[in-house]
Amino acid sequence: MLIRTAEARWEGNLKEGKGNIRLGSGAYDGPYSFNSRFEQGTGTNPEELLGGAHAGCFTMALSLGLTTAGHAPTRLETTAKVHLSRVAEALTITSIELITEGRVPGISAAEFERLAQDAKRNCILSRAISAPISLKATLLA
Amino acid sequence: MLIRTAEARWEGNLKEGKGNIRLGSGAYDGPYSFNSRFEQGTGTNPEELLGGAHAGCFTMALSLGLTTAGHAPTRLETTAKVHLSRVAEALTITSIELITEGRVPGISAAEFERLAQDAKRNCILSRAISAPISLKATLLA
Repeated sequence: MLIRTAEARWEGNLKEGKGNIRLGSGAYDGPYSFNSRFEQGTGTNPEELLGGAHAGCFTMALSLGLTTAGHAPTRLETTAKVHLSRVAEALTITSIELITEGRVPGISAAEFERLAQDAKRNCILSRAISAPISLKATLLA
Repeated sequence: MLIRTAEARWEGNLKEGKGNIRLGSGAYDGPYSFNSRFEQGTGTNPEELLGGAHAGCFTMALSLGLTTAGHAPTRLETTAKVHLSRVAEALTITSIELITEGRVPGISAAEFERLAQDAKRNCILSRAISAPISLKATLLA
């Protein structure tokens, strides 16, 4: 079993308080705030961290699926868009859009699409998320 | 509605390939790999990004709950531990442990516990996650 950690700190109330997020690996250690989350302030926010987790996991899983099918990818690029909307007064992650493009020697568009949908359904993060997930996959020439 | 983005790139097969994750704010832009995810390599991994998202969201939500109850916190510190285990052959996030400590003037331990459990149940990330979530909350003297 693996355990991965991260830490958050918050000082003060919601709007004027200040926060910090530190990833266990030390890869990121920096500020977040009400402004960086809900307005346009600098710093990270939980939604983009979730998007990074999901895009990263999906893209690795797709590489595995493609490699197993005999088509290791030259390059995959995935954007995750995390949508935050008010639902019955509560701010809610209403969807995560995955948009992936791949350069994959020797594969058909249909097989790429099938393996991308498979990674979307079965990657570790997708199975830990209850928010709706959509996927648009494009095989580049 | 807000949309937060992140991008992942992967080149090559699963084990020897190399990846990169970039958060939309630019707060993090750096490598991840099979080694940084499943072994001890340097770089980030999707599980600690999920942990950072969850710890960050929970801690802000607890600040809001405490402030609304008339007890803006001096300081809250939360660790998220994301557990990854093999379940029926598939690597699975089996739980997210939240461990929080707070310095909160004028609150009782019981009210702190109640508001912490409320933030655990209702924060934006908790409502987007299907993996089991546990919480240990401690009010510091």
